[in-house]
Amino acid sequence: MSDLFWPGDERAGALLGDAELLRTMEAVESAWLEALVAGGIAPISARHPVRGLVGARDVDAVARAAEAGGNPVIPLVGLLRDRLPAESARWLHRGLTSQDVFDTALVLLLRDVLDRLDTELRRQVRELLRLTTAYAETAEVGRTLTQHAVPITFGLKSAGWLTGVLDATVAVERARSGLAAQLGGAAGTAAATVELALLQGHPEPIEATWRLIETTATALGLPARAPWHTSRAPLTDVADALVTCTDAYGHLAADVTTLSRPEIGELAEGSGGGSSTMPHKRNPALSVLIRRAALAGPGLAATVHLAAATTVDERPDGAWHAEWAALRDLGRRTVVAASQTSDLLADLRVDGERMAANLDRAEGVRAEQQSMAALVGAEPSATYLGATPRWIEAAARRAETYLTADGPDGSGGPGGLDGPDEKETT
Amino acid sequence: MSDLFWPGDERAGALLGDAELLRTMEAVESAWLEALVAGGIAPISARHPVRGLVGARDVDAVARAAEAGGNPVIPLVGLLRDRLPAESARWLHRGLTSQDVFDTALVLLLRDVLDRLDTELRRQVRELLRLTTAYAETAEVGRTLTQHAVPITFGLKSAGWLTGVLDATVAVERARSGLAAQLGGAAGTAAATVELALLQGHPEPIEATWRLIETTATALGLPARAPWHTSRAPLTDVADALVTCTDAYGHLAADVTTLSRPEIGELAEGSGGGSSTMPHKRNPALSVLIRRAALAGPGLAATVHLAAATTVDERPDGAWHAEWAALRDLGRRTVVAASQTSDLLADLRVDGERMAANLDRAEGVRAEQQSMAALVGAEPSATYLGATPRWIEAAARRAETYLTADGPDGSGGPGGLDGPDEKETT
Amino acid sequence: MSDLFWPGDERAGALLGDAELLRTMEAVESAWLEALVAGGIAPISARHPVRGLVGARDVDAVARAAEAGGNPVIPLVGLLRDRLPAESARWLHRGLTSQDVFDTALVLLLRDVLDRLDTELRRQVRELLRLTTAYAETAEVGRTLTQHAVPITFGLKSAGWLTGVLDATVAVERARSGLAAQLGGAAGTAAATVELALLQGHPEPIEATWRLIETTATALGLPARAPWHTSRAPLTDVADALVTCTDAYGHLAADVTTLSRPEIGELAEGSGGGSSTMPHKRNPALSVLIRRAALAGPGLAATVHLAAATTVDERPDGAWHAEWAALRDLGRRTVVAASQTSDLLADLRVDGERMAANLDRAEGVRAEQQSMAALVGAEPSATYLGATPRWIEAAARRAETYLTADGPDGSGGPGGLDGPDEKETT
Amino acid sequence: MSDLFWPGDERAGALLGDAELLRTMEAVESAWLEALVAGGIAPISARHPVRGLVGARDVDAVARAAEAGGNPVIPLVGLLRDRLPAESARWLHRGLTSQDVFDTALVLLLRDVLDRLDTELRRQVRELLRLTTAYAETAEVGRTLTQHAVPITFGLKSAGWLTGVLDATVAVERARSGLAAQLGGAAGTAAATVELALLQGHPEPIEATWRLIETTATALGLPARAPWHTSRAPLTDVADALVTCTDAYGHLAADVTTLSRPEIGELAEGSGGGSSTMPHKRNPALSVLIRRAALAGPGLAATVHLAAATTVDERPDGAWHAEWAALRDLGRRTVVAASQTSDLLADLRVDGERMAANLDRAEGVRAEQQSMAALVGAEPSATYLGATPRWIEAAARRAETYLTADGPDGSGGPGGLDGPDEKETT
Repeated sequence: MSDLFWPGDERAGALLGDAELLRTMEAVESAWLEALVAGGIAPISARHPVRGLVGARDVDAVARAAEAGGNPVIPLVGLLRDRLPAESARWLHRGLTSQDVFDTALVLLLRDVLDRLDTELRRQVRELLRLTTAYAETAEVGRTLTQHAVPITFGLKSAGWLTGVLDATVAVERARSGLAAQLGGAAGTAAATVELALLQGHPEPIEATWRLIETTATALGLPARAPWHTSRAPLTDVADALVTCTDAYGHLAADVTTLSRPEIGELAEGSGGGSSTMPHKRNPALSVLIRRAALAGPGLAATVHLAAATTVDERPDGAWHAEWAALRDLGRRTVVAASQTSDLLADLRVDGERMAANLDRAEGVRAEQQSMAALVGAEPSATYLGATPRWIEAAARRAETYLTADGPDGSGGPGGLDGPDEKETT
Repeated sequence: MSDLFWPGDERAGALLGDAELLRTMEAVESAWLEALVAGGIAPISARHPVRGLVGARDVDAVARAAEAGGNPVIPLVGLLRDRLPAESARWLHRGLTSQDVFDTALVLLLRDVLDRLDTELRRQVRELLRLTTAYAETAEVGRTLTQHAVPITFGLKSAGWLTGVLDATVAVERARSGLAAQLGGAAGTAAATVELALLQGHPEPIEATWRLIETTATALGLPARAPWHTSRAPLTDVADALVTCTDAYGHLAADVTTLSRPEIGELAEGSGGGSSTMPHKRNPALSVLIRRAALAGPGLAATVHLAAATTVDERPDGAWHAEWAALRDLGRRTVVAASQTSDLLADLRVDGERMAANLDRAEGVRAEQQSMAALVGAEPSATYLGATPRWIEAAARRAETYLTADGPDGSGGPGGLDGPDEKETT
Repeated sequence: MSDLFWPGDERAGALLGDAELLRTMEAVESAWLEALVAGGIAPISARHPVRGLVGARDVDAVARAAEAGGNPVIPLVGLLRDRLPAESARWLHRGLTSQDVFDTALVLLLRDVLDRLDTELRRQVRELLRLTTAYAETAEVGRTLTQHAVPITFGLKSAGWLTGVLDATVAVERARSGLAAQLGGAAGTAAATVELALLQGHPEPIEATWRLIETTATALGLPARAPWHTSRAPLTDVADALVTCTDAYGHLAADVTTLSRPEIGELAEGSGGGSSTMPHKRNPALSVLIRRAALAGPGLAATVHLAAATTVDERPDGAWHAEWAALRDLGRRTVVAASQTSDLLADLRVDGERMAANLDRAEGVRAEQQSMAALVGAEPSATYLGATPRWIEAAARRAETYLTADGPDGSGGPGGLDGPDEKETT
Repeated sequence: MSDLFWPGDERAGALLGDAELLRTMEAVESAWLEALVAGGIAPISARHPVRGLVGARDVDAVARAAEAGGNPVIPLVGLLRDRLPAESARWLHRGLTSQDVFDTALVLLLRDVLDRLDTELRRQVRELLRLTTAYAETAEVGRTLTQHAVPITFGLKSAGWLTGVLDATVAVERARSGLAAQLGGAAGTAAATVELALLQGHPEPIEATWRLIETTATALGLPARAPWHTSRAPLTDVADALVTCTDAYGHLAADVTTLSRPEIGELAEGSGGGSSTMPHKRNPALSVLIRRAALAGPGLAATVHLAAATTVDERPDGAWHAEWAALRDLGRRTVVAASQTSDLLADLRVDGERMAANLDRAEGVRAEQQSMAALVGAEPSATYLGATPRWIEAAARRAETYLTADGPDGSGGPGGLDGPDEKETT
């Protein structure tokens, strides 16, 4: 996919795309039908492969038919039933409601997004660790409220970016761990499934239903959970995590655009963007596009929260529907920004000489030091970088701990980050 | 187009679509090249048809190439130059900057959106005028803070919806009248064009440049205006108008979902949506989807304002880029909601008997009247509808005035509501 | 008033303060009681001065009692009745509902805000006209996407700021002209008043009621209008206008913070802010605080729209209540930002020599000109400012037109920009 | 405190009030001065009690003086120095920057807010556990997209509310655990302190500085952490947690306002609010005010994220300043909503008979069951509540686990909730 209105969109590939949504909704129906049979609720004769019955070619038809019932699950079920043998068609979707299928599919798509982000965040942590270490002692002017303050090093600035990215990894892992299947039936009671189990003679129909939910969730690689049709924290947590990523990216991109101003010239993108009319220009194009995402993210996350906050009844009348595109857009755009940030960091040009020159010329950058020296009646010391090495070391250590942990497969990985330790920096 | 994540999206057709953007950007380049020749700045030999050189087949390539420079104009210009004869290619885009082409194209696309909204708003005003008149005396319970208050008529409620829609027509017309071409060159000085005019011997190169801008704007059907690269009120006005529409639609859709609750049953959608598992259900699907748009709109408009508020330099470093998708999404979704609202109103089922029955059963709905009667020591009068007829008449009269005015072509219609003069800047 | 969390808050004085709200709510009750008597609905014996019965000393008690009924009008009415003679107390508030009193009071407070903004906007237009004219020919580097582009003059940049401010004046005047009294009674039917008029023997009770509404509105200096309890465009228009102001201010403040970076040094605030630890620092404190307001504004306006969009029934269950603080905060903060902007502009220091030096050093700033000259095989001309004089003249002319128009009193001023007719509804 | 524009505001007491901010800023200065002395950096003669030197009486003066430097710390330091003996005055604030003092004070105030929320959340969990258990078998109609779906019990609905509240407890505890002191000096390097330590002959000045930071943080009851001037996840986590609370409250309040509509009548607030004109009315006033907070929350949290995303340099030029009031308003309003929710739940009236009657009258509520029975060729069973008992049990067990954990004092309390277990519901 690509998007003329969102340059770079193709970096998100098929993530959260229409065809992917159709595929994952089909996967949910497939896993449920399989579980109905396996659980002895549907007859063996209902077993039939479902995956692959619909595909990208059906997206437009399903999308156009979605309005009548308010969601795409209804036409999808119709299409699948048309293409299945009669007995499978009869049993397909029994016990589910549209929201089950859509929510679970959305969760699967968001999991893919968070996995992709995990990959990009790791890349970013590695690059930032490299920058932080390499420029640990490269002095530059510290700037506050746009004015020269006291000296820092570029490694310290990079360590600040790193902290933001590491904080984002915590949020992403947290959100990932909250994702679960949604399999609750019409009003979240799973009544249809329990009824079927009961009428089929299952001695413990509720237990059989729970096993069905577990089987389906496991087949989809998700935890089972009681229905959460109206408790949307799993989704607001995802939205918050995505924005925590774009916050971190926006911050570092703002620093890059600022420090690549010609008058400052301390940083430059590896391959700046051209201009349609000015042959000499090298624009910080990646940073500009990252900033765009950082400006647009909070409003989308607010919409997801707003949907959660206006939920009503057993399944709501519009709030649910408002989540879909907000999460899709926020998800794709965050992945695009993440990928752009990874590239930005990999190719960032740091001009240590310019940093030194700017620092030399900076008036007043020793003024605080002089007033401290005056306070104790001594001569100022030679440098004024304070605890910079320690902060750099702390950020670097946190990064190393993160990088040596395993991936998001649950085998001891980022989940372990959520302890109190990784926030302590000494 | 269609969108699995936004059922009903196809109602917006090609509006603000990628292919339309490419087409309108091409149209801007075309009009400018034509004007360069007509104005004696480019040679006659540079004249060549530009329209049709690129098309939907090029969207993906242009979109993918857009990231490098941060916008799709740069690759578009490259593509057009590849496909034009050498002399035309040399002159194409001379004097323009990317933002000129993108902004003017976006303005053209937004104008189409506002025109489509104008059509839908007119349809809505007609339907609401019909409902307001037809049910002017159909009494129902007035409800405040969800509780029964005093009697109203359904015509009065409909008149309230009508007022919201009429207010939206004012905002839409206002926004439309503020749209203008953007033709300023690299930093808004039109320096390249003036330079060319000067070097070509034009005695008054600035005047020649202004005529070029006027010619181009006129060819595109837009007013000419001094560059507004960093003064974004024309776009925030559009965003505000779009949200004023979804506000009005959200309000009436909330009334429809509420009053179509089975326990109330006073309204129903003409053809309610089905359920994937409950054969009996008739969901207010249009209202639900309209409410979705009303929840999502304000966040998108806020992003457009935020972009305006963080504009910096002669063309900004991310704020501009954040506007595009926000306006595209807000524009398309508002058109979808408008079209759904028109349909909703056309088919709305009003159950006057149920209204009467609910009113009969409503406890306390005469309590205020009784306390008024007690205040003056008289018996309450037979009815208690107050000035309802007058408010209905006022809304109907305003609707009729609006409907008898001509369309948005400026020939005496709503265009007259907002003087065109104060926005012209030359 | 002052606010430790919003430095500069005291610039907004008492505007939209608690005591002002109490005072204006009292004024509404007072005007209505007076009109009831004047209209022959309440007896002469009910006439009694109401203004001054409550005051700042009562704010806390009314505020604390407001929660029980959800709004402060109920306890205010109770308090006024306690302090009025029995006959006046009996007639006070008859025919009104809480929302009438609160909305009309809010409208009066917002009108004061818009009037204050009008004053500040005028000041800003004057200052910007001065800057634009004074620096019309002071060349500096034009910057796009943070990089050097082509030359501009500071007067042109200032003209861009001016355009934003002038656009804001249009929005403010537009919003002001949409304000009207809210006097509809329990469910907007004015039924209680009509009933009283009828029972008192008025031959045309609806006509008498309308006259009562007109009398009250006129006494308050507002237009009369049919009730708009659930049609909130008058308030969203105010919110949009306020944000259009902060957009304009944010834009110019971003330019000031950027150009006052020491490495650029082209602008400085007249009296920069100090630092708590660095004696040499001169922070662009006003610009920083203005930018703060520009970042916070769009979210507040979105809340006002959201309230409009989730309105339901004859008076809604939370949406109305969400408007109050959002409009209060947005209103006060916009006034503060406006006042700060006026000061910023009045004292802005422009360093023309630094501008010239930066321009001299700017690489590539002639590159576009050279490619234009090469295009026509000529030597570049001496300057490259293009149509700058024309754009400056256009902005200046628009400013002069605005300044020579009268104030917002309707006597030929900006009020003329937006026909008053289309909003009148009787 | 109280607020006419936000009824119920007094429930938040002094939390995040101006006087509290002044007090906590003073506490930070006090702890730092004490630590300077204790750490051997300042002389013993500099030791002097600081707490109590300023108070509520100084709020207005400090607030008014705050604008000049852009924050209230500068005038506060001035005031404290005026009131301290010379030697203490000389040493006060040495090594700190304004943002250190403000951020740490804000963190202390937010910690108080989160503690208060913890108390309210516990109360809510208890009340919801009671409701869930008491009405576990009280059948009512399940409603989806406003229409009757299948039967549920009120206990199940309450369990859904409980899940939202329990999810909020996780977010609140998470945010609380991320709070830390901010003590970094002018540009986050702690250079002034390290310089002083060095000049005073400390052999390991960085280590001495870190101990100073730890001592100060410990004295304030906060963890020490490397400076986070530009990494704002600790604050965005708080904002996200607050909105996760209002999301949960908004959801349950929407259910209460809906189900207390007279036509439905299944729920009622214990003491509904009155009307200013309709003697019979009992408005769901608490729910209405809670909904208000839920509508306003997401926009404020978005502002906090936006500030994080636009951070630049070592301390930013407006983004930081935009956080303060957003967090103050969001914090207070969330506490108010929490307190109102606790009361709402404690006094909620549940009308089981009406629930039964509505269920009896609900057409089609057995339709799904019948189609399931038809599917397997059997008679429908007697009930259709499915797994309702199991979901209730799961929510209740999670609530009990939460309630038996200790408080937020770290001794085994809610921190333990963040494991993977509490989300599993079987």
